[in-house]
Amino acid sequence: MGQIITFGEVLMRISPTSNKKFIQSNVVEFYFGGTELNVGISIANFGGDVKHISAVSDDFIGETAISYIRKFGVDTSLISLSKRPLGVYFLEVGAVMRPSTISYNRSHSAFSEIVPEKVNWENALESGSWMHWTGITPALSKGAFDTLKAGLKLAREKGMTVSADPTYRSGLWNYDQDPKEALIELLNYSTIFIGGINEINEVLGTSFGYSNDDFIEASKQLMKAFPSIEKVFDKIRTSLNSSWHKIRARMWNGIEFKETEDLDITHVVDRIGTGDAFAAGLIYGLQQYDDYKAIEFASAACALKHTYEGDVNLTTLKEVTNILGGNTTGRLMR
Amino acid sequence: MGQIITFGEVLMRISPTSNKKFIQSNVVEFYFGGTELNVGISIANFGGDVKHISAVSDDFIGETAISYIRKFGVDTSLISLSKRPLGVYFLEVGAVMRPSTISYNRSHSAFSEIVPEKVNWENALESGSWMHWTGITPALSKGAFDTLKAGLKLAREKGMTVSADPTYRSGLWNYDQDPKEALIELLNYSTIFIGGINEINEVLGTSFGYSNDDFIEASKQLMKAFPSIEKVFDKIRTSLNSSWHKIRARMWNGIEFKETEDLDITHVVDRIGTGDAFAAGLIYGLQQYDDYKAIEFASAACALKHTYEGDVNLTTLKEVTNILGGNTTGRLMR
Amino acid sequence: MGQIITFGEVLMRISPTSNKKFIQSNVVEFYFGGTELNVGISIANFGGDVKHISAVSDDFIGETAISYIRKFGVDTSLISLSKRPLGVYFLEVGAVMRPSTISYNRSHSAFSEIVPEKVNWENALESGSWMHWTGITPALSKGAFDTLKAGLKLAREKGMTVSADPTYRSGLWNYDQDPKEALIELLNYSTIFIGGINEINEVLGTSFGYSNDDFIEASKQLMKAFPSIEKVFDKIRTSLNSSWHKIRARMWNGIEFKETEDLDITHVVDRIGTGDAFAAGLIYGLQQYDDYKAIEFASAACALKHTYEGDVNLTTLKEVTNILGGNTTGRLMR
Amino acid sequence: MGQIITFGEVLMRISPTSNKKFIQSNVVEFYFGGTELNVGISIANFGGDVKHISAVSDDFIGETAISYIRKFGVDTSLISLSKRPLGVYFLEVGAVMRPSTISYNRSHSAFSEIVPEKVNWENALESGSWMHWTGITPALSKGAFDTLKAGLKLAREKGMTVSADPTYRSGLWNYDQDPKEALIELLNYSTIFIGGINEINEVLGTSFGYSNDDFIEASKQLMKAFPSIEKVFDKIRTSLNSSWHKIRARMWNGIEFKETEDLDITHVVDRIGTGDAFAAGLIYGLQQYDDYKAIEFASAACALKHTYEGDVNLTTLKEVTNILGGNTTGRLMR
Amino acid sequence: MGQIITFGEVLMRISPTSNKKFIQSNVVEFYFGGTELNVGISIANFGGDVKHISAVSDDFIGETAISYIRKFGVDTSLISLSKRPLGVYFLEVGAVMRPSTISYNRSHSAFSEIVPEKVNWENALESGSWMHWTGITPALSKGAFDTLKAGLKLAREKGMTVSADPTYRSGLWNYDQDPKEALIELLNYSTIFIGGINEINEVLGTSFGYSNDDFIEASKQLMKAFPSIEKVFDKIRTSLNSSWHKIRARMWNGIEFKETEDLDITHVVDRIGTGDAFAAGLIYGLQQYDDYKAIEFASAACALKHTYEGDVNLTTLKEVTNILGGNTTGRLMR
Amino acid sequence: MGQIITFGEVLMRISPTSNKKFIQSNVVEFYFGGTELNVGISIANFGGDVKHISAVSDDFIGETAISYIRKFGVDTSLISLSKRPLGVYFLEVGAVMRPSTISYNRSHSAFSEIVPEKVNWENALESGSWMHWTGITPALSKGAFDTLKAGLKLAREKGMTVSADPTYRSGLWNYDQDPKEALIELLNYSTIFIGGINEINEVLGTSFGYSNDDFIEASKQLMKAFPSIEKVFDKIRTSLNSSWHKIRARMWNGIEFKETEDLDITHVVDRIGTGDAFAAGLIYGLQQYDDYKAIEFASAACALKHTYEGDVNLTTLKEVTNILGGNTTGRLMR
Repeated sequence: MGQIITFGEVLMRISPTSNKKFIQSNVVEFYFGGTELNVGISIANFGGDVKHISAVSDDFIGETAISYIRKFGVDTSLISLSKRPLGVYFLEVGAVMRPSTISYNRSHSAFSEIVPEKVNWENALESGSWMHWTGITPALSKGAFDTLKAGLKLAREKGMTVSADPTYRSGLWNYDQDPKEALIELLNYSTIFIGGINEINEVLGTSFGYSNDDFIEASKQLMKAFPSIEKVFDKIRTSLNSSWHKIRARMWNGIEFKETEDLDITHVVDRIGTGDAFAAGLIYGLQQYDDYKAIEFASAACALKHTYEGDVNLTTLKEVTNILGGNTTGRLMR
Repeated sequence: MGQIITFGEVLMRISPTSNKKFIQSNVVEFYFGGTELNVGISIANFGGDVKHISAVSDDFIGETAISYIRKFGVDTSLISLSKRPLGVYFLEVGAVMRPSTISYNRSHSAFSEIVPEKVNWENALESGSWMHWTGITPALSKGAFDTLKAGLKLAREKGMTVSADPTYRSGLWNYDQDPKEALIELLNYSTIFIGGINEINEVLGTSFGYSNDDFIEASKQLMKAFPSIEKVFDKIRTSLNSSWHKIRARMWNGIEFKETEDLDITHVVDRIGTGDAFAAGLIYGLQQYDDYKAIEFASAACALKHTYEGDVNLTTLKEVTNILGGNTTGRLMR
Repeated sequence: MGQIITFGEVLMRISPTSNKKFIQSNVVEFYFGGTELNVGISIANFGGDVKHISAVSDDFIGETAISYIRKFGVDTSLISLSKRPLGVYFLEVGAVMRPSTISYNRSHSAFSEIVPEKVNWENALESGSWMHWTGITPALSKGAFDTLKAGLKLAREKGMTVSADPTYRSGLWNYDQDPKEALIELLNYSTIFIGGINEINEVLGTSFGYSNDDFIEASKQLMKAFPSIEKVFDKIRTSLNSSWHKIRARMWNGIEFKETEDLDITHVVDRIGTGDAFAAGLIYGLQQYDDYKAIEFASAACALKHTYEGDVNLTTLKEVTNILGGNTTGRLMR
Repeated sequence: MGQIITFGEVLMRISPTSNKKFIQSNVVEFYFGGTELNVGISIANFGGDVKHISAVSDDFIGETAISYIRKFGVDTSLISLSKRPLGVYFLEVGAVMRPSTISYNRSHSAFSEIVPEKVNWENALESGSWMHWTGITPALSKGAFDTLKAGLKLAREKGMTVSADPTYRSGLWNYDQDPKEALIELLNYSTIFIGGINEINEVLGTSFGYSNDDFIEASKQLMKAFPSIEKVFDKIRTSLNSSWHKIRARMWNGIEFKETEDLDITHVVDRIGTGDAFAAGLIYGLQQYDDYKAIEFASAACALKHTYEGDVNLTTLKEVTNILGGNTTGRLMR
Repeated sequence: MGQIITFGEVLMRISPTSNKKFIQSNVVEFYFGGTELNVGISIANFGGDVKHISAVSDDFIGETAISYIRKFGVDTSLISLSKRPLGVYFLEVGAVMRPSTISYNRSHSAFSEIVPEKVNWENALESGSWMHWTGITPALSKGAFDTLKAGLKLAREKGMTVSADPTYRSGLWNYDQDPKEALIELLNYSTIFIGGINEINEVLGTSFGYSNDDFIEASKQLMKAFPSIEKVFDKIRTSLNSSWHKIRARMWNGIEFKETEDLDITHVVDRIGTGDAFAAGLIYGLQQYDDYKAIEFASAACALKHTYEGDVNLTTLKEVTNILGGNTTGRLMR
Repeated sequence: MGQIITFGEVLMRISPTSNKKFIQSNVVEFYFGGTELNVGISIANFGGDVKHISAVSDDFIGETAISYIRKFGVDTSLISLSKRPLGVYFLEVGAVMRPSTISYNRSHSAFSEIVPEKVNWENALESGSWMHWTGITPALSKGAFDTLKAGLKLAREKGMTVSADPTYRSGLWNYDQDPKEALIELLNYSTIFIGGINEINEVLGTSFGYSNDDFIEASKQLMKAFPSIEKVFDKIRTSLNSSWHKIRARMWNGIEFKETEDLDITHVVDRIGTGDAFAAGLIYGLQQYDDYKAIEFASAACALKHTYEGDVNLTTLKEVTNILGGNTTGRLMR
């Protein structure tokens, strides 16, 4: 495996402990995250070589963010410093039928004011073999979109694998840009599609349902529309309530459809970043295993993320393979 | 909606974090509560105008109690200060088959030594349209009983709605008064009955069972015995264990019987004050919706309280209506 | 005493416990503050009737901010809600020769985007007798400056006392406005000047030194330049290091010069907001005592603030008068 | 009931709060435990007279360990002080399909360097009626094995009941001794066998399955091989995952086979020490009740332990008998 | 040294961390204390054999209190259980010129309702050689006064040493009893007087000043009035402010006057219980050393208590003798 | 500046918060440290390129240790994994006249069982320009001594600067080796001596006093005995008590004697690692400044370390140079 490159915003996440609201206690905890960073750190925790590219504030909060990323052995040498503050988000963790709630303070952040000149992509991709992007980054600002586009273009020229998680979050797109057009432009540089029916419908303008048959047909149409895309992966979450989810994965790799069993997450600790954990498992898995085992790996990684507080999947390779080996009963390890 | 008036003791609740016992850690957390106060704060959190009347200690604990109530926008201007200490209760939160346990230090408290002269009810009820009382207050002392009675009498004279939650807790009645007679006297001032078979059997001396038919018949007899009572509401809790409850509500409004679906609370965070949350939801709901929607609202509010630490329901109007809209899967809100 | 009106930004302050840096622990505490709010809350803690006017985010962070202010009995009814996030600042508390350090995230905040139309000043000042402003608000944005100016104008028309703390912090003035001109314009609406040699030199363009003689002469020139100003108050801090300060106050009221003794703060807990505590003590004191006793009161209040974590002075009237009575040995109170 | 004697290592357990990993937070909690100590403290919590014999470090950690044991009323007068450090173990508590993980630092510990001369068994067993041992102690070192053997020999000579929990943990046996031979030697001093099919197969060299029939046959063969053993008790755990277990118990007392119902532990708080809680419940129960009620008691005690953080079962007699009385719904106790 | 007997109330102390007020945080810590208990535990920490006699609530708070006392090896076998709650006190720890503040909730407590029949003094004093009492106990209730008197009477009959710390706290005496008469009655059973000029003036009705000459003369008159008293010990505290104290001791033993040097406590952590620490040091010291070394020991013990949170002096014998050996520079001990 | 190489044990430090003892609370905090590591991390915090060589446990504790070091940007690529546990130390932080106390659990640790074959020194020193060692490492085991010796030998062959902090702690030397001989052998590879009179007397067998004259003479004799040593640096601590220290530095560089002013550390937060902070400041300073400014820099760095919890100096270059610029009053930095 060569180096995996991620590019995206680093956010400081601040939340009360357990299921408290901010009104209940003035003691809170912070972590750092960000959808692409979460993917990068998770891969590093599996043993991958990862470089994350971003911009943070030039103060002790930015320093703390960098030290947090460095802790996991991710290369931070291309994170630039900015006069703008780091983006922050506040989280109240729900339970049962109470949803978790997020409040963002990220517009005008250090990252959102990035411009292509800030990233030397030649340098950045020098030893890279895979680049991953999500739909969050192009939504943040024109500068972020342009910088990402420049990176993806070079990545493809260098023959790198490019995985796309084109999540569309409408509330984020606040600059003068049609989201659909932007995502289409970026998908044309991508080879792996990580996303479900909603994302496909968004970029194709279709209205497929959630059945497996619809998924296969949607994937075929997607791959026709974007010839660079070779494989489509989807994660399906069934939520009984905030505290009890089930996760399974499915795929269409142009040849065959496969689907994993549901993993039953009876006691959710933290659901933030579980989609990123899936993407990270997939990126790692596709480089180590066949496609089906890769989705099993990704699905198990995703399920394990639900047991860790914070945005980042702290799961080790051993924990994931333990589950793949059929051991899901949580037997004490001494 | 006019102003809702609650009158009752403010208790300081002290408990270890998570499921610890006091013997395990010297770090504990405190909240304030009290059955009528819990009702008042919950209604204020829905946007209602609420005044709570009480007596607290004239020291930094009493000040902290008042500031806690004020935090939720509840009017505290008629809370008097006393030379006696604030009542305290200690709580160890159970789990699974281990019950939660409470130890009270409330006799001789600031509130229990209240006397009618301490409350200017004319002033207190000036802009009130609804008054709520529970069976806890008359149990605490003769002074508390007499003060409550004076308030209820005036409330009825002014044509206010009076809701009664005549919970009978035998351990509390330590002064020279027959509990049943006291509750009967107070129910004669009441128009809304919030309570179940046990409470009805207690005041009527009957022995109805828990079936819906029994509930209807019991309600009819209650309304015959207390002509001022117009509607009867009941909350039914099914406990698998300390950590897993189900809640539903039923009603007899003199015309029709209705019952809601069970809400499945698979991961109870804190069950204290959930009955008060039901009453608050009902008081709010009856002023906004028809009777059936009111019990749906109350039932959802009650279920949501199980996800908040502390005595008080921190649920917002939006969270409750979200559930009424059928969204119980706890989808993340950004 | 009529109502005291404060207008200014509400900031969320986030800091690690004790003297930790963010890199040391992910457990942090938050408080709310803001220079004018700090003044308002402190006066409310002395028993004053205070209304704070501001704009906060329309989310659970804004709600928490409002509930925090309400806790102290300050009127929050004119705080408006905004689509923009609440301003945040991060603090690392120093010790000995290590300074405390602050990182702001406040530009583009809910308050900085306020405009005059957002505040109904007629309504706001209805029962007001005193309005207090500082040099922070006009620095934040043109909208903040204009809104403040409209309020001060009306306050003077109504004959209210206007106290000014025209702190000049150059890093904040990021819009197209000459700071000096802005401060001069606002000082023309002011009757009480709370500030030292630096602030006087700034607005007069003079270069007075720190001696008492210079202070008297500077005050005289200030009062000549701004005829509405009747009295000038100054607080003098002597810092041995981050953990050990001394505080005294001096005044020129047009007739006489007075100076208090140094108060020796041998173990500083938190120095943020101590200037605001001085201003609050002064505003309260000038309405209760003669000028000299007012600066003694303000000085003691300021000294006491150094013993409270957070931006806000939690000191009670009793604690301050206790010191004025000569009791500075911290004898245990039962 | 005479005095119950336990002998074994005291370990300091250090773990992050809730389900965190050490990499997530530098705030951790400690408890003390050790398989035999856990049994002893649990019996003391039921009201039994217990003496624990061990060796701890001669420093503030050893003092803290002794004070922890003393807290529960266990006699610590025969715990000796050593120049070696106290054994430590680190625990990361899992959730759902993530297993809990333990890292030990116990070789070369104060206890592992114990020798028979350090314990005056005549003195120790003076008022003892029951002695309990486990397979952990003989695994730690030759000195520990020899010291235990000396104690068991005397206990049998004095006619005491000896219960054995011959857990075999292969990773611990690091000195020159065949584990099977050691366990056989110690079982010859034992009268009560607490262990399952695995332990029986280990010492008999058989390969019984987990069915009840196999259990009965295995028990018979065990009792033939070890004529001193009068009864065999087994606890069966069914794990859905780390957070959801079921527990039941079965027994063969030479005359009849009995089995309890499953207890459904839907929300596991901490599974460490639950086996010890079962043994403690059994030792207490066999002295108070008939054999079947004893396994019901032990099974309920074991289930309750899953709701307490730490190694030690904090359950009271009242909590256990409450469950035996059929009350498993966790009804609030005031 | 025989057994030291203490008799008095056990209080639960609840306080926010560091210098916070209750209004600042809902996270608080608890300890147990009580003036006589503090003396007992401190002596136990020096290695003494101590029995504490009291009454606590018959619930988990009472159990936690007993376990807390047992932790230090103090004999709790004669602590009785009561239907009344345990006394509680709330503490806000001051700093610099802000005093610490206490709010009590102790009237009607478990201990205050004690009666002589509850304590079997024959049994209690069986192996006792020293009994210590303070002026707090007789102030609490007639029952407490009578019970104490019965104990002191027997102690004297048995020839035990009786030390008195007749602190007079006027706010506590709320039953029908003249405080001065009560203290005089109890002093007639006492042999060691631990108290200063204020206490002597109180019982003699004199008005001595604080000089050494006055102290000597006052002591002489005291010993004339109470012939059983053999020695008088006084501790002198000089407070610069809440955070900086100095401590020294003086004595009149009927033959000579002695005085120690001031110990400079530049950073007070917690001053509660420091008087008790002095008494404990004295009781221990008088049994080990000559009178002068005893006051040096007591003074050092008292100074060290200022560095421990909680009511109880956790100081070890080694720490005190280390200071007596002249080592006050706090050199790190490995 | 080339790469700075440090080699030594990584210890996990566990301590209660503030000034608590372990007996007071089960909530503790951990950091990592170790004398050479502390030096390395501090230099990295100034911006230096640092590699730390060590051995840690092959489990989640070892991983957490590595992640902690990585956080500061120190190269951990040559830290090997071991089957032995990581060394641990427990710390109780004193105050005023109470000393801080340490209990070690480090013998038989991962590092103490290192052997020369575990470190590829050619590789390790490839880009190194400076190597630092202390007297702790050779004390731990023969393997540690031999491994260090091999590294120093190569460092000198490559012409690197070698700084020695030959602290002699007698309690650590538990294997068959004369400490003095070992230190002498290692000093022969050293060019910079960081240590005081005690260390010089230890290796020379002399008995110099603490005066400056003695220091100069001792340094001269040391440089005669060890011709490779070019400069001698000494840090002088004056402790009023545990909470109040003063620090100054002196030097003899073969040509001139210089001494800095005392820095007054009036409120010590944590004194552990302050000697290492001095060494780090010196190593950094000697590469950036002249010798005198280097000791000023080292002295300021050392003083600042007293304000940080943990073993490691978190001070930034800016904080140190701020003090060198004369700013020691701790003025707030925004």
